[in-house]
Amino acid sequence: MNLSYPLLITSLLQHPIANNPDQEIIYHTTRLTYTQFYARVCQLANTLTRMGVKHGDTVAVMDYDSNRYLECYFAVPMIGAVLHTINVRLSPEQILYTIDHAEDDVILVHHDFLPILEQIRGRIDTAKHFILLSETGEIPPTSVEITGEYEALLAQEATTHTFPSFDENTRATTFYTTGTTGMPKGVYFSHRQLVLHTLTVTATMGSASAQSFHQNDVYMPITPMFHVHAWGFPYIATFMGVKQVYPGKYVPDTLVELLVKEKVTFSHCVPTILHMLAQTTAYQEADLSHWKVVIGGATLPKAMCLAALEKGIDIFTGYGMSETCPILTLAQLTPQMLTQPLDAQATLRAKTGRPIGLVDIKIVDEQMEEIPNHTPGELVVRAPWLTEAYFKDTKNSEALWAGGYLHTGDVAYKDEEGFLKITDRSKDIIKIGGEWVSSLELEDIIMQHSEVKEVAVIGIDDARWGERPLALVVPKSQTNEKLEKELMHHTKEYIKKGVMAREGMLVKIVFLESIAKTSVGKIDKKTLRALHQ
Amino acid sequence: MNLSYPLLITSLLQHPIANNPDQEIIYHTTRLTYTQFYARVCQLANTLTRMGVKHGDTVAVMDYDSNRYLECYFAVPMIGAVLHTINVRLSPEQILYTIDHAEDDVILVHHDFLPILEQIRGRIDTAKHFILLSETGEIPPTSVEITGEYEALLAQEATTHTFPSFDENTRATTFYTTGTTGMPKGVYFSHRQLVLHTLTVTATMGSASAQSFHQNDVYMPITPMFHVHAWGFPYIATFMGVKQVYPGKYVPDTLVELLVKEKVTFSHCVPTILHMLAQTTAYQEADLSHWKVVIGGATLPKAMCLAALEKGIDIFTGYGMSETCPILTLAQLTPQMLTQPLDAQATLRAKTGRPIGLVDIKIVDEQMEEIPNHTPGELVVRAPWLTEAYFKDTKNSEALWAGGYLHTGDVAYKDEEGFLKITDRSKDIIKIGGEWVSSLELEDIIMQHSEVKEVAVIGIDDARWGERPLALVVPKSQTNEKLEKELMHHTKEYIKKGVMAREGMLVKIVFLESIAKTSVGKIDKKTLRALHQ
Repeated sequence: MNLSYPLLITSLLQHPIANNPDQEIIYHTTRLTYTQFYARVCQLANTLTRMGVKHGDTVAVMDYDSNRYLECYFAVPMIGAVLHTINVRLSPEQILYTIDHAEDDVILVHHDFLPILEQIRGRIDTAKHFILLSETGEIPPTSVEITGEYEALLAQEATTHTFPSFDENTRATTFYTTGTTGMPKGVYFSHRQLVLHTLTVTATMGSASAQSFHQNDVYMPITPMFHVHAWGFPYIATFMGVKQVYPGKYVPDTLVELLVKEKVTFSHCVPTILHMLAQTTAYQEADLSHWKVVIGGATLPKAMCLAALEKGIDIFTGYGMSETCPILTLAQLTPQMLTQPLDAQATLRAKTGRPIGLVDIKIVDEQMEEIPNHTPGELVVRAPWLTEAYFKDTKNSEALWAGGYLHTGDVAYKDEEGFLKITDRSKDIIKIGGEWVSSLELEDIIMQHSEVKEVAVIGIDDARWGERPLALVVPKSQTNEKLEKELMHHTKEYIKKGVMAREGMLVKIVFLESIAKTSVGKIDKKTLRALHQ
Repeated sequence: MNLSYPLLITSLLQHPIANNPDQEIIYHTTRLTYTQFYARVCQLANTLTRMGVKHGDTVAVMDYDSNRYLECYFAVPMIGAVLHTINVRLSPEQILYTIDHAEDDVILVHHDFLPILEQIRGRIDTAKHFILLSETGEIPPTSVEITGEYEALLAQEATTHTFPSFDENTRATTFYTTGTTGMPKGVYFSHRQLVLHTLTVTATMGSASAQSFHQNDVYMPITPMFHVHAWGFPYIATFMGVKQVYPGKYVPDTLVELLVKEKVTFSHCVPTILHMLAQTTAYQEADLSHWKVVIGGATLPKAMCLAALEKGIDIFTGYGMSETCPILTLAQLTPQMLTQPLDAQATLRAKTGRPIGLVDIKIVDEQMEEIPNHTPGELVVRAPWLTEAYFKDTKNSEALWAGGYLHTGDVAYKDEEGFLKITDRSKDIIKIGGEWVSSLELEDIIMQHSEVKEVAVIGIDDARWGERPLALVVPKSQTNEKLEKELMHHTKEYIKKGVMAREGMLVKIVFLESIAKTSVGKIDKKTLRALHQ
């Protein structure tokens, strides 16, 4: 009798538009009300429909964080098309691969990224239209066949659109994740998944006693919107009807200026970005004591966490990955934890945190059996918003979902408070006898010696132990022989203190002039393992 | 590849049990931690399974608000059975009807309600087991064949249970709604619906800037748990992991004592209950300035609202009905509204409020066309948690869902802030010419005359106007003739002030010694219309 009510992106929008018509969405000098924003979402839907975009077609975006990107977040899936958020930091060849693989029909491109498309233009087979995202309204001379400029196209369209209803399992978004090797892998998310991610993160963060995100906040992303839906927060912020600030191209001084000027209270970023901000005079002088920031994408260093806390910033870790929409855990503190000194809080806030609602996380051994607290194991997960598979890639999809849980590839342990701590990527863990030793932890320890410039630890085959750690060290100046002895002693001290397992003593040291890196600057452990086995 | 993740009641429980193991659930002298509560949920699941309860069977409960009722809220649906929350205030014959109609397999009954079952015992055909909910552990002499006492049965069982996974559209709960006439009608809700209701209310209330419900609150229901899942709040409170207090049988002094002693910060009740509490000395002396209370089930009188505000209580309206799980709207104030004087706030807080997330409400005319703000019309609704139909009742189900929206049967208008105000039940509205006049508003006006003891207004057929209002008045003492003149004058004053539409002037007055009531004490307008047409 009851017409089914599918969970669609469209259903997230009705409530905030009705309840917060005058709330603002800001980008440079553009200040839109939610009412105006919704009119533009309708205009974009009309523009795309006029271009022939149909249910199941793919619309790609290459832009900075902007209100226009947010309009795409809604309008594209709301007409039943798939939003492909292109990672503009990939190489042109990789971008071409993702455009082909995702079968993009329309590409919206900011003029700053035109040179990328110009470079690969002759080889894009699927795209029928290119829409220019211009800051000036001008279309610059280009070899890319631009159908029209975004604002001009929207201006021609009606400000209403009747959005269709369809199956909630329809694909809404897709994007590509890059490992240290191989071509990018496509992940994708349905309307149902994005709605459930939005509702559950809002419920968990909104109702939290600390590290919350609520209707009085002012939101500004400092994570690119091509990066896992900017961690889902643009959907969450819109659903709550809060004031939103989109910062465009990331310029540290401008970002800090926006934080202050627009009274931003909630953001998220990777540690590197926070480090960049912290270097600016503007940051050092700013009062950021009303600012909450979720750190993800990489481990939050405790020292960085403590420095931010001392500045009055409510900083804490969030954890997830491209395959998981992304949010799985948050390091939200209990009222009791909040009474602890900042140093102790920094330790907790730099942990991976606790699962949010509906997230089923297990730490398992190789037989997928759950293992006790404080013992590291692989972190596997189920939740209603995990990618169903890698797009058109059965083999990797089967490995991802082996045993009915999504394999994060991260190694973690759980403490008695239920806080998770990721210690390593599972492929970088060293299995010594029955014990798992974290290569990252050994690297941390060795790096703390003042004469070490760079270090990478990998596992090498060992007849007796199965594996033992090999430390590849770039020294600053000392002779290798002296340094080797010192480092062995240095490591033993940490073992004595109980910081490192006894198996760490088995470390073997090799000195190098440099360590192999990947194209994005990460230590290339795969190559190192091949070279030093 | 991804095993589907169904939205099950089970999935609501994992997160709070893991994150709040030591949080308390309180009933009389029983104080359970969440860990103990979960163990008891498992024991109850084992007890029911041992009795032969299978997927799709129905388990009914007759109890006061208790931790045991909460255990049933979870364990029964989590094993795939349907929880029937019996309205113990119905007549024994009506209760028998609902037990038969719902096909209850097992009935859990508090010893206070044994006399009801004794009265109908010979005629219950479906129930195979009766479990006694005792306060003492004793089984009193009774003609009902008790299988066992709840605590004794649980004590025999293991404290773990592997809960199955199944289709999220499986029925989880059912209960019966009574109109002023006819037999009770069964409504029912699936796991998916209850999970989405829980997530969305938590998201909307948790993230709210005012009139919120969050993880630091202490929760106590003052709405019976048989009444529309106590408005869904036991699920919400458990999902958030808050301290919960279950008050047992409602005794005004005890309720106030619990509010104070357990530092309760969040409750919900009907206006009548708040009125009862307010009569007690305990209430008058208590500091309730940290107490938030949602009022629903009937219109919150402005005077009651203002008195509570003046006592420092954060009081506001929630709206829904048995058919809607129930929550549809909340009168949550914006930061701006909160700066208004209490009197103005009371007007807003006594309104029906604004739709919560995912709720699509329209105010329509008889052709289901939306009508402008400030004009009353029928309130129709879609949301992901509305009953699919009346159980085994095609005719009423079709009327409920005519035109693809659920018909609330309420007449309301919307103001420019998006706040709804319910003015009447649609069957009690009087249609004079083209104008809709609220019988409730006319009753309110007439009631304000000091010589009126009781009043009911109904519509009667009128050759010229279609309908005109007839006021049935029970006077205090004055002669009818004098009072009639005074009341006509009194009504005109309100028309002059713009409070009542000009059509109110057409009111005709008849004096009676008493006004017909239904079994639950509501004015029986159906009978009145039949008598006075």
